[in-house]
Amino acid sequence: MNILLTCAGRRNYIVDYFKAALEQTGGNVYAANSKSYAAAFVPAEQSFLVPEIHHPDYIKTILQICTEYGISAIVPLFDIELPVLAKARNMFLSHGIQVIVSSPDVIEICYDKWETFKFLQQNGFQSPKTYIDLDSVNNAIDNKEIDFPLIIKPRWGMGSIGIMEIDNREELIVLYHKIEKVIQASYLGYQSSKEPGQMILIQEKLTGQEYGLDVVNNLNGEYVTTFVKRKIAMRSGETDIAVTENDLELMDFGAKLAKKLNHMANLDVDLFRTDKNCFVLEMNPRFGGGYPFSHLAGANLPAAIIAWLKNEEADPAWFTITPDITGFKGIVPLKMTKSPINFTENVSNHCRE
Amino acid sequence: MNILLTCAGRRNYIVDYFKAALEQTGGNVYAANSKSYAAAFVPAEQSFLVPEIHHPDYIKTILQICTEYGISAIVPLFDIELPVLAKARNMFLSHGIQVIVSSPDVIEICYDKWETFKFLQQNGFQSPKTYIDLDSVNNAIDNKEIDFPLIIKPRWGMGSIGIMEIDNREELIVLYHKIEKVIQASYLGYQSSKEPGQMILIQEKLTGQEYGLDVVNNLNGEYVTTFVKRKIAMRSGETDIAVTENDLELMDFGAKLAKKLNHMANLDVDLFRTDKNCFVLEMNPRFGGGYPFSHLAGANLPAAIIAWLKNEEADPAWFTITPDITGFKGIVPLKMTKSPINFTENVSNHCRE
Repeated sequence: MNILLTCAGRRNYIVDYFKAALEQTGGNVYAANSKSYAAAFVPAEQSFLVPEIHHPDYIKTILQICTEYGISAIVPLFDIELPVLAKARNMFLSHGIQVIVSSPDVIEICYDKWETFKFLQQNGFQSPKTYIDLDSVNNAIDNKEIDFPLIIKPRWGMGSIGIMEIDNREELIVLYHKIEKVIQASYLGYQSSKEPGQMILIQEKLTGQEYGLDVVNNLNGEYVTTFVKRKIAMRSGETDIAVTENDLELMDFGAKLAKKLNHMANLDVDLFRTDKNCFVLEMNPRFGGGYPFSHLAGANLPAAIIAWLKNEEADPAWFTITPDITGFKGIVPLKMTKSPINFTENVSNHCRE
Repeated sequence: MNILLTCAGRRNYIVDYFKAALEQTGGNVYAANSKSYAAAFVPAEQSFLVPEIHHPDYIKTILQICTEYGISAIVPLFDIELPVLAKARNMFLSHGIQVIVSSPDVIEICYDKWETFKFLQQNGFQSPKTYIDLDSVNNAIDNKEIDFPLIIKPRWGMGSIGIMEIDNREELIVLYHKIEKVIQASYLGYQSSKEPGQMILIQEKLTGQEYGLDVVNNLNGEYVTTFVKRKIAMRSGETDIAVTENDLELMDFGAKLAKKLNHMANLDVDLFRTDKNCFVLEMNPRFGGGYPFSHLAGANLPAAIIAWLKNEEADPAWFTITPDITGFKGIVPLKMTKSPINFTENVSNHCRE
């Protein structure tokens, strides 16, 4: 069974996890990326340079690679790509190729953080007070509904692009417009440009302990388990150091969330626990930067995905983690030994849709 | 021969490099850090939790570790610590312990980026136009000496803390004061608080190709070689992807810089090459985030340092790199297997000096 990781980028360790998971079954792990330099290319069996996600030939190119290399399943690793692959999921299925991606509805709820906020509110989960534009947050400040410090962040976003703390009205106005420019110049600009004036969310700043959850459903969207990690340090918007915890309250929280959302495979959840409650910051329906901390402690979701793809039972040991395991994201310098195969040369030269 | 890496933090790969360099000689690599979670602790023979750098017992604690563990040389890895260890270098030498750190004068030139600017100007090297306070940059804008966009960055700093691009006067004022607060709340606050109103530099923004150099002197400050890397991608202020180049002009540039500065061992240099000239952005007299790209291409400065410490000749092969090697900083999840030995419990409970 061959697996293709798309938008593989820096996730060299996910390539390694799938390679290990395929060891008994046999099969290779391939990696695609729209930039020609990607750490994940190094451990991959073969790597592919593909058009950008919003290029009209993106899906066609991925399908071509799947056909040529006998790919059984695609595992997308980047938020921006999830809506595109979710919509193409049935088309891939008709070619016998599984895409490990949730339904377009679930992706929309997670990708648009304003939709996330509404979903959480409607389903009885707590989240930080959130405002969609400057007018509404200014009113809320006037009405003493909320006060500084505030957090501003891109409505569609990931990593640490454009997240800032705001201490007063002057900063709110200047930094809001600054972040607008930063978003428009980044890969977040494609989606954000559709909602000028509403591309940035303003949230209350919570204080408390930050946690990361891997909320695992099977490929039918049925709940399996939740791995809980207490975050110790962040870097570039990703968890850098974390400790696994056997926290029944947060595991139960994950179960409730999973049963409302019915996502597929992994849901990476960031939350704050204060003395009052658990507040969900965001949900990403894919392998997140926090997954390695679960894997270090005994989890093996890649192996479970391979088993499920073969219609086999997953080993319960893959869903059991040891608590109190401290994990670090260390650095491993990697040398590029061969270039990716270029699948961008023959694509049509259309502008983005 | 035993080596102690101080402020080891995330530099797990430097521990690995020194372990490999010591393989023939024999000896262990130890790691110290003032936070109890550090990726570099994992591969170290033994790790130590030590007081913060500016704690009055910092040097005493490092000396105690050196004595107890038979350390022959200390390799500091963090800018903030270099001035402290440079001043203590002779004291350590009197105990038979080498510190791989440049003289206090050299450290001052590199650590204070305003001093860096003056050093470069005085010695005929180019650097971006730089201003030390809001008044001087406002005058320069009025006189059309400089124009937006500008870059503001901490005068004493490292990584990406507080570096921002500024597009207009409104942003200049608001972000300048914002960054002031960020610096004061960070580990950069200790030094910066001594120069209120002059803790942030304002620079012209250059466009061009960014390069990283490892400018290598021996332990007597005599020039050895320069490794040249073209930067492809950055992350959190560190080089994330780079390609080695056989660029005689930049190697010559490194040689000239080394002979003016007379630093010890590695000088990590960031520079921009425009169509007109080479502009030095900063110089860090330690192993920098760009060193692994030289090492991947054949460099072995840790082995050279070990040889020099033993008064042996360094193998010329360690100073020869293959050009056109593309390197990535991949991620390696690491599990903490044993806790650091706590050297903070018995230190006196003084406030910072």
